[in-house]
Amino acid sequence: MITSCANSKVKRIVALQEKSRNRAKENVFIAEGLKMFEEAPLSAIREVYIEETVADALENGELQRTDALEKWKACERDGIPVETVNREVLLKMSDTQSPQGVLCVIERHSYDVKEMVTVAIRRKQESGQSPLFLLLEDIQDPGNLGTMIRTAEGAGADGVIMSRGTVDIYNPKTIRSTMGSLYRVPFVYTDALSEVIALLQKEEIKVYAAHLKGEKYYHQFSYKEGAAFLIGNEGNGLKKETADLADCYLKIPMEGKLESLNASVAAALLMYQAAIGKF
Amino acid sequence: MITSCANSKVKRIVALQEKSRNRAKENVFIAEGLKMFEEAPLSAIREVYIEETVADALENGELQRTDALEKWKACERDGIPVETVNREVLLKMSDTQSPQGVLCVIERHSYDVKEMVTVAIRRKQESGQSPLFLLLEDIQDPGNLGTMIRTAEGAGADGVIMSRGTVDIYNPKTIRSTMGSLYRVPFVYTDALSEVIALLQKEEIKVYAAHLKGEKYYHQFSYKEGAAFLIGNEGNGLKKETADLADCYLKIPMEGKLESLNASVAAALLMYQAAIGKF
Repeated sequence: MITSCANSKVKRIVALQEKSRNRAKENVFIAEGLKMFEEAPLSAIREVYIEETVADALENGELQRTDALEKWKACERDGIPVETVNREVLLKMSDTQSPQGVLCVIERHSYDVKEMVTVAIRRKQESGQSPLFLLLEDIQDPGNLGTMIRTAEGAGADGVIMSRGTVDIYNPKTIRSTMGSLYRVPFVYTDALSEVIALLQKEEIKVYAAHLKGEKYYHQFSYKEGAAFLIGNEGNGLKKETADLADCYLKIPMEGKLESLNASVAAALLMYQAAIGKF
Repeated sequence: MITSCANSKVKRIVALQEKSRNRAKENVFIAEGLKMFEEAPLSAIREVYIEETVADALENGELQRTDALEKWKACERDGIPVETVNREVLLKMSDTQSPQGVLCVIERHSYDVKEMVTVAIRRKQESGQSPLFLLLEDIQDPGNLGTMIRTAEGAGADGVIMSRGTVDIYNPKTIRSTMGSLYRVPFVYTDALSEVIALLQKEEIKVYAAHLKGEKYYHQFSYKEGAAFLIGNEGNGLKKETADLADCYLKIPMEGKLESLNASVAAALLMYQAAIGKF
């Protein structure tokens, strides 16, 4: 059991939590909490740290989380290092003030835009379900990004494509906000959102941008051929050159004196409007 | 100009930022940033603190924010104390790491549930617009609450009613997330959500709860008579005794393995679904 915050493993985890560069170099991210542990693909787990009292409670059945217990046993079977730590150490390693007993180092999964689009097109041919993508330009708030990934799973989106200027998806707050969707929604960063837009358009997936120039409201489109929604930075919206590439402009109606909705709320309204027909 | 963080006014603001009890005792809240200053009702502003460089830039026209400049002049005309402070002092007083030049103490406005409902009913009689309310039970995340207030303005909601266990709406993070909607959306805390539900039902406003028992999806209702949406705590959902009071259960469809959507996303989907007909 690790009981000292000066332990080199503890220091390493703290550095991984704080520095996106360290996480990128090791090609990992940190997932916290029982839920994120339970839902992690076994093959992607590199290290697990369990708080002593939680480990005991899992083993003696006081804490009834069968999935967590099974995942733990599977890790041990596969030779994935599982260490117990005391509360002080977990608090030190955690990004939150009230950590939930488990922290793990997870290997990143990388997705490919072309593959995402191919899968979406195939799904359309097989089941008639329209392709649905979210295109994010320079989203800055980690919570907003995480919420968008979570909503994308709910709406059944085929993928989330982010400009390089978007906040790190492996930021601890983003990971928490995804509520596990991070493991399941395909996503990718791109240096050239314009090329992704061209690729989608070539496959007859229409690209929509919320824009003042829009004449129709978002609920007045059918989205039948498939839709990719451009969502811009929280403060500045979409860059002009990006908005110019959209096939259609749309508006989200607003009462009152509001200038805009929260970016993750706007993304949710658009994705669900496009998806609702299939439910 | 205030240049010392030891100044008693600075200490008072810091205490107001940190302690919800202090804010409640003085019946005020702290609004930060130029936008929140510009949109604040003049009669509610009690004190203003402007960073020296921002004050200069406003006066010499380098910073073109006519509304802020006019609000400042109006404050001085009305005898509302406006003080300049240096960057260090503003940083000390601010809840954010990059404060935007202005911080003000604003007097709270109190709303009454019965009045809110009366106004909504009158509006319906005059314009045919269906009443729309949001009922929040023990929402804990300040950002979620702020985003819900913001979306409520966009959807034209008549009011937001919160259980006493809901996070403080005057929490600095909540205020920021409202983007000014806090000044415009009627809201109230209640000790008895059940009584509010009964009041709405008496006025033939239907109360909807997202619930596993729901058989219809949220887009399959018309919401014509008026709607009040119950949104429960992020972790635990609605209490059974509260959900039991709803007229209708509804479901938000979800693909994937998701258990739920973010509370502010769910609130947005429901409010906009009810509101969209009027746009």
